[in-house]
Amino acid sequence: MIKVGIVGGTGYTGVELLRLLAVHPDVQLTAITSRKEDGLPVADMFPSLRGRVNLAFSSPDKADLTQCDVVFFATPHGVAMAQAPALLAAGVKVIDLAADFRLKDQATFEQWYKIPHTCPELLEQAVYGLVELNRDAIKGAKLIANPGCYPTTMQLGFYPLLKAGLVDAGGLIADCKSGVSGAGRKAEIATLFSESSDNFKAYGVAGHRHTPETVAQLQNFTDQPVNLIFTPHLVPMIRGMHSTLYARLTRDISNEELQALFEAQYADAAFVDVMPFGSHPETRSTRGSNMLRLALHRHGNMVIVLVVQDNLVKGASGQAVQCMNLMFGLDEGKGLNQVALLP
Amino acid sequence: MIKVGIVGGTGYTGVELLRLLAVHPDVQLTAITSRKEDGLPVADMFPSLRGRVNLAFSSPDKADLTQCDVVFFATPHGVAMAQAPALLAAGVKVIDLAADFRLKDQATFEQWYKIPHTCPELLEQAVYGLVELNRDAIKGAKLIANPGCYPTTMQLGFYPLLKAGLVDAGGLIADCKSGVSGAGRKAEIATLFSESSDNFKAYGVAGHRHTPETVAQLQNFTDQPVNLIFTPHLVPMIRGMHSTLYARLTRDISNEELQALFEAQYADAAFVDVMPFGSHPETRSTRGSNMLRLALHRHGNMVIVLVVQDNLVKGASGQAVQCMNLMFGLDEGKGLNQVALLP
Amino acid sequence: MIKVGIVGGTGYTGVELLRLLAVHPDVQLTAITSRKEDGLPVADMFPSLRGRVNLAFSSPDKADLTQCDVVFFATPHGVAMAQAPALLAAGVKVIDLAADFRLKDQATFEQWYKIPHTCPELLEQAVYGLVELNRDAIKGAKLIANPGCYPTTMQLGFYPLLKAGLVDAGGLIADCKSGVSGAGRKAEIATLFSESSDNFKAYGVAGHRHTPETVAQLQNFTDQPVNLIFTPHLVPMIRGMHSTLYARLTRDISNEELQALFEAQYADAAFVDVMPFGSHPETRSTRGSNMLRLALHRHGNMVIVLVVQDNLVKGASGQAVQCMNLMFGLDEGKGLNQVALLP
Amino acid sequence: MIKVGIVGGTGYTGVELLRLLAVHPDVQLTAITSRKEDGLPVADMFPSLRGRVNLAFSSPDKADLTQCDVVFFATPHGVAMAQAPALLAAGVKVIDLAADFRLKDQATFEQWYKIPHTCPELLEQAVYGLVELNRDAIKGAKLIANPGCYPTTMQLGFYPLLKAGLVDAGGLIADCKSGVSGAGRKAEIATLFSESSDNFKAYGVAGHRHTPETVAQLQNFTDQPVNLIFTPHLVPMIRGMHSTLYARLTRDISNEELQALFEAQYADAAFVDVMPFGSHPETRSTRGSNMLRLALHRHGNMVIVLVVQDNLVKGASGQAVQCMNLMFGLDEGKGLNQVALLP
Repeated sequence: MIKVGIVGGTGYTGVELLRLLAVHPDVQLTAITSRKEDGLPVADMFPSLRGRVNLAFSSPDKADLTQCDVVFFATPHGVAMAQAPALLAAGVKVIDLAADFRLKDQATFEQWYKIPHTCPELLEQAVYGLVELNRDAIKGAKLIANPGCYPTTMQLGFYPLLKAGLVDAGGLIADCKSGVSGAGRKAEIATLFSESSDNFKAYGVAGHRHTPETVAQLQNFTDQPVNLIFTPHLVPMIRGMHSTLYARLTRDISNEELQALFEAQYADAAFVDVMPFGSHPETRSTRGSNMLRLALHRHGNMVIVLVVQDNLVKGASGQAVQCMNLMFGLDEGKGLNQVALLP
Repeated sequence: MIKVGIVGGTGYTGVELLRLLAVHPDVQLTAITSRKEDGLPVADMFPSLRGRVNLAFSSPDKADLTQCDVVFFATPHGVAMAQAPALLAAGVKVIDLAADFRLKDQATFEQWYKIPHTCPELLEQAVYGLVELNRDAIKGAKLIANPGCYPTTMQLGFYPLLKAGLVDAGGLIADCKSGVSGAGRKAEIATLFSESSDNFKAYGVAGHRHTPETVAQLQNFTDQPVNLIFTPHLVPMIRGMHSTLYARLTRDISNEELQALFEAQYADAAFVDVMPFGSHPETRSTRGSNMLRLALHRHGNMVIVLVVQDNLVKGASGQAVQCMNLMFGLDEGKGLNQVALLP
Repeated sequence: MIKVGIVGGTGYTGVELLRLLAVHPDVQLTAITSRKEDGLPVADMFPSLRGRVNLAFSSPDKADLTQCDVVFFATPHGVAMAQAPALLAAGVKVIDLAADFRLKDQATFEQWYKIPHTCPELLEQAVYGLVELNRDAIKGAKLIANPGCYPTTMQLGFYPLLKAGLVDAGGLIADCKSGVSGAGRKAEIATLFSESSDNFKAYGVAGHRHTPETVAQLQNFTDQPVNLIFTPHLVPMIRGMHSTLYARLTRDISNEELQALFEAQYADAAFVDVMPFGSHPETRSTRGSNMLRLALHRHGNMVIVLVVQDNLVKGASGQAVQCMNLMFGLDEGKGLNQVALLP
Repeated sequence: MIKVGIVGGTGYTGVELLRLLAVHPDVQLTAITSRKEDGLPVADMFPSLRGRVNLAFSSPDKADLTQCDVVFFATPHGVAMAQAPALLAAGVKVIDLAADFRLKDQATFEQWYKIPHTCPELLEQAVYGLVELNRDAIKGAKLIANPGCYPTTMQLGFYPLLKAGLVDAGGLIADCKSGVSGAGRKAEIATLFSESSDNFKAYGVAGHRHTPETVAQLQNFTDQPVNLIFTPHLVPMIRGMHSTLYARLTRDISNEELQALFEAQYADAAFVDVMPFGSHPETRSTRGSNMLRLALHRHGNMVIVLVVQDNLVKGASGQAVQCMNLMFGLDEGKGLNQVALLP
């Protein structure tokens, strides 16, 4: 059994980790920390876990996370970088669901996240946890930077096009839409039911932290300079993410060839579903599951890739468990066979 | 023109007052106070008001509310009682949308609201603003206690039955359901979209402040001792309130007589719609309007009254404007002719 | 492996059976029938099942359901009674999720469902599939009448009180609220998003088919004549059911004794969670799971029982799988360990 | 008083016309037709209109629409073209909310709408009712083709850029999102609450009827050939439309100049609100009102225009009333001063 610790179990990625790990056959939940909720049974905060998770939150000062085999950080940015060095030194593997290790470039990190990076020496060692594009490195990793939710959809959607050199990398557009859980479990007026229900809006159009992460990764797949316009929007639904990606073809290719390209790319990916050409994937077809689905469309020389996922599963905690499975030599789908909840 | 001031314009009853008063033909919006938002144009906080309300919030210390003819308090409990005495002394009429003057009994107020009452001498003078049951007193009032949202539905639903001595006043049950805006515009986790969407629950079953208010008012209509079980629930919708009222008949009466009783009672009430016997009123049929609709059902000796309203209009700000109209000698429906928004 | 057939796989209880059975370790999905969708891959209709269910719908005329070990009817009322006799004769077990076999009294069935019963001889043999109250009979059953969703909550909530002779059985009130999926997957204006979102209403107050079913079952638990007022309402959420039950105590009992009574009653029930006295269960704490949660409240001599479940799982398909497990000698929770999806 | 007839009052644009016209000071509602609902009081179908609209639906065979001054067609495509010639001949003005007269080119109409056009001779005479771009022609019009909802946002957003020759007309992208009411009040599974709530998807990506309408209109504003990629999506909200428009600048211009261009263009437009540069307009800021709001963003040489409106008001019935006002010499905002419903 893998002994698992979770730092910061009171947010949505934390409770989602608990939902998934509670039924994972090879996992023993060992410690869940929260400074604020020390002593509170986890199931008192999340009644969905009553009878399934019997742990209580413990203060980070008391919990001995070095007894764990792996520790997930489901925390705000800045927490993992403070605690990861000691854990790694003690032989504990670390998976950070926040951004501390996503950007290889320290200056870019500090510019976008407005905090100094306290262990830049780990940036090189950290492995970016986008399984489908980085599986081998993940298997040997000790420190995982779990990808952002939006970047997961943008990378898996644009990758085959860029890798094949088919599109103008300098003119990519990603018009993305996220459910409200992406904003986290924080007491804020903007995400109250009465503010965000029955409403739709864009946000952060001037600049979003997921842009540098995505551009840096996409740049790995092409020699052209990547330029990306990324426009995030907020959808009145709890879970779900839909990215509408636009790329301009620079050479002639048929729809059938395009489709074949994507199908070949993801033939072995258990959690990427390439739907028939011209399909309209729905976010609900992934609700609660680790599947990401995508479909291709075409208008003249414009390729449109529609990508959907559950932002809390494949976009966060599910992907983190997928990484954990690989790091411990398990089948990457272990404990992730949930069928999406529809309706 | 009636010069109107609003204290506490940043909550939902505040912005709803602004929506209604911005198109009221006899009103001149004169001052809107908010300590925290001093100087901020109201329309910057509520973009729905862009081009319609040109005032900025002003600090309560700077705003001279004594220049107003009437001041609405759309504030938490405790604010109106602090400022009302000076305003009344200056000849300004006061309408409090909170609970400061709803309970005649000081001890009951202090028990339920956990704060001392600072001007108990005004309690006797305050007029309870439930127009359909108290119209004449409201016309002459200088200080209005605007009813709570739940109490409005419970009183208008039970009143004809109690007044006619038809039911067991000691066994009333009100199973009530409210949209989330009833919880106000406060940053709290429990009313986040991701917590209260796609969910339904009861709350405050052990005791809710609207119980003593309702019981005290209902007691005015009957000699029997009133006993009320009131169970509030939270519905994943922004606006709307549905009360399902149960009362046991103590004498024989036909459905036709029951229906006639209610129709006669509310024949002159422009904002109470007695629907045909056996109807199922929908909250959306009142969305954004000042109408309250009700319908009767019957099972043996049990009468069921279904009552719906928009909790922010007839349940709060619309009722307050209705009171204002009466206090200034206007038709009580002035500025309140909005048709409900359906769909 | 249990070979499973599903008749009527195009509705919500059908797709929910597929979601659950697709990951059930002892089940082999063998046939899914739909006259209208003959030949269509199931996953084309329900993209959540892509990669998980590879069957296509087959016409009932072609499918040989006698090869199955058990057949679920996820159909409108009237279908199971037409096909059950032949299946039973062929040694196939039958679980009907509709009402064909729920009422022992043929006349009552025909009065409420407006169709003649075509195999009344099976009514006596049919076992009512409310596991927690009927476990032993279910183990030996060949024909299961799976309970209605509302009746499940009302029975599990009222049962301990009636069995202990604590309450007035002649004055029970159930004020119940259901998510929209309870209305099924039928093209109807009333359940369009634009009609039922941001809205709340009662329906069927004059009489609902779940009343005779519930009264007949409750009558088994008490010698007093049962009288039940049942008021269903529609909540703008997809899944979830919340029943607020009112019963008047006829003898003195403390809150602690009441709580102990319920805890003892359901001590061995893996899918009934008796929450601490005074709790407010939320429907979302059961979303997608087979758990039913309940909590007790008290006002004088009135007991209020709050009950929540997912109407499609414990209220329908999950309960049916629970029955199947018992009928085939498996642990009743096999394949039903999904943790509720929160948020 | 303007005598108004409405053909097809049972859909969402019909009931929205009724909501607006019921409080329009210069309008007398005279006839509402529906073949299917002949004799039914309108308020029985739409309880929001109880006490406000006392008409009953009448069969089109019985209603004498020639007694009206103007007739609105809130019907499916094909109905207005059948009845308009006779009404126009009788001197009645006609406003069609469907597409019958939106496309000047008969062949294009027939290609996209799959029905023959029965009065092509009226196409030239029909005036496109987008008030802000066509005000003078509308004043003198006898037959109005009321614009589609999406085309209204796309035209008002792209127009100033195209007219000023600032952008590449051959590379326009419109990523648009609509509330579910845009799909109309039709019994269909895809728009059931349980299918479209808590979900997000694109639809009609391969080709949508609003593309030829928009392209034809945009082509009027530029000499360059217009090419438009239009991607519609469905948002789980009742009302509201958000268009995210992308256009590539072909000459140098500052953000301040861009902003000034839009502000100058719409300075006199009471219903177009140019928000400060970099704003994020929310659909709810227009809910129930006739306002369209837009804001500009910039990334390098890409201009992003965010446009919101209520699809049933400015996107349909409100715009039609705005046209009617102009056709009858009234102030264009008469009866359209509703403030948006927020929250």
